[in-house]
Amino acid sequence: MCELLGMSANVPTDICFSFKGLKERGGRTGPHKDGWGVAFYEKKGVCTFKDALPSHQSEIARLVSDCPIKSTAVIAHVRQANRGRVGLENTHPFTRELWGRYWTYAHNGQLTDYKQLKLGRFLPVGTTDSERAFCYLLGELEQRFGQRSPGPKAAFRFIQKLVPKLQQLGVFNMLLTDGEYLLTYCTTKLHWITRRAPFGMARLSDVDVDIDFSRETTPNDVVTIIATEPLTNNEQWHRMLPGESQLFRYGEPIV
Amino acid sequence: MCELLGMSANVPTDICFSFKGLKERGGRTGPHKDGWGVAFYEKKGVCTFKDALPSHQSEIARLVSDCPIKSTAVIAHVRQANRGRVGLENTHPFTRELWGRYWTYAHNGQLTDYKQLKLGRFLPVGTTDSERAFCYLLGELEQRFGQRSPGPKAAFRFIQKLVPKLQQLGVFNMLLTDGEYLLTYCTTKLHWITRRAPFGMARLSDVDVDIDFSRETTPNDVVTIIATEPLTNNEQWHRMLPGESQLFRYGEPIV
Repeated sequence: MCELLGMSANVPTDICFSFKGLKERGGRTGPHKDGWGVAFYEKKGVCTFKDALPSHQSEIARLVSDCPIKSTAVIAHVRQANRGRVGLENTHPFTRELWGRYWTYAHNGQLTDYKQLKLGRFLPVGTTDSERAFCYLLGELEQRFGQRSPGPKAAFRFIQKLVPKLQQLGVFNMLLTDGEYLLTYCTTKLHWITRRAPFGMARLSDVDVDIDFSRETTPNDVVTIIATEPLTNNEQWHRMLPGESQLFRYGEPIV
Repeated sequence: MCELLGMSANVPTDICFSFKGLKERGGRTGPHKDGWGVAFYEKKGVCTFKDALPSHQSEIARLVSDCPIKSTAVIAHVRQANRGRVGLENTHPFTRELWGRYWTYAHNGQLTDYKQLKLGRFLPVGTTDSERAFCYLLGELEQRFGQRSPGPKAAFRFIQKLVPKLQQLGVFNMLLTDGEYLLTYCTTKLHWITRRAPFGMARLSDVDVDIDFSRETTPNDVVTIIATEPLTNNEQWHRMLPGESQLFRYGEPIV
């Protein structure tokens, strides 16, 4: 299995604090030693760091956890390989362009019979069930709406209706973003927390690091963090239920 | 304008030495201060580092120039913006998936009337002439060969026939790779050098760094470096002529 980390924020925010926690799970406090990756959006652009090494040993991961890259949408992943060899082409997150936007995705879980998933023009480069499911979702989006985007919200609502079909194939905890919206889907384990004023202290579970968000933020900041397991041990995280999905836009949960 | 750097090698090789030179041109020894990027292939996988900051000031660029990431195909770019704002979405190199392979591209030059370039299903995310030309090339590839790849060599040969059309729109120095082949096209300025045994010393032009390749390589290594301007001042680089194109595969020039 793997672990997921996502962020949705209304102002460019760095994810150093949360990533420090996740990176420890990549081979030290967790068994997810088969590569890691993190994608940062800056407006419509995206930059993705990836490495097939364990994140807790990776020079690049160390830089990312120390370097305050400001972003409004982030998806990160530490991998414990099940389907597909350990290698860069099988390392999450995955990105494709559709309708002139970059779509970025990461998956935690394992699917059976995933080769039955119909593909359109988006083809996997690697050999994971995860990437195939991503290509399937984008292919269905294009099949449904053609060459013109129906608008991001309608597109994400369509995906929300589609993902239960993947749940029938196995465990499918997922994060998907276009840089504006971020969609979560939970079949076994996914937690989120929205931080807003008044901000307080937070303490990481995996490493002895704490932070006073009131010194890092402005009163108008809204920042949602999504993680497989809560990353802090002194805050109340929302535990998602099997089959539950939640859409976020710039940090705010969308009903 | 901008500067390009590419590498094609028959064994995974790091590009630290050449990148150290290029990175200085990103705002210090050169005016290309509007962002930089570098894509590394590992088999079919690719990892791209990008930053809208000047490379000579970028923490991430410093890491990349010190961190020996081994790759058989690399494309790097330092940008001096002409068309399109300074921002991540306009920062080269650009990548798209076609036929289950990642295609990565960077451009140096400026095109006029580039909006006339017909687009297929690949759409630009940013607003540069460069990305539009890339989407045009991939669209034409798919238009010509449909859903089945004709094989990488045939695909690159098709692109080689197509690029002179872009030259009619302005300056089009280009690097394009799928991780196996690397295609160069020159309309004004592009140089390359193939290093093989017996390896010797090389000295960078932009910063006081030299290297003894005989201590870094094995006798069977073949490594081609492509750059807008020669990066070393004690070696003989091949200067490409206007309209000249050269295809490389794992370091070897392909006739």
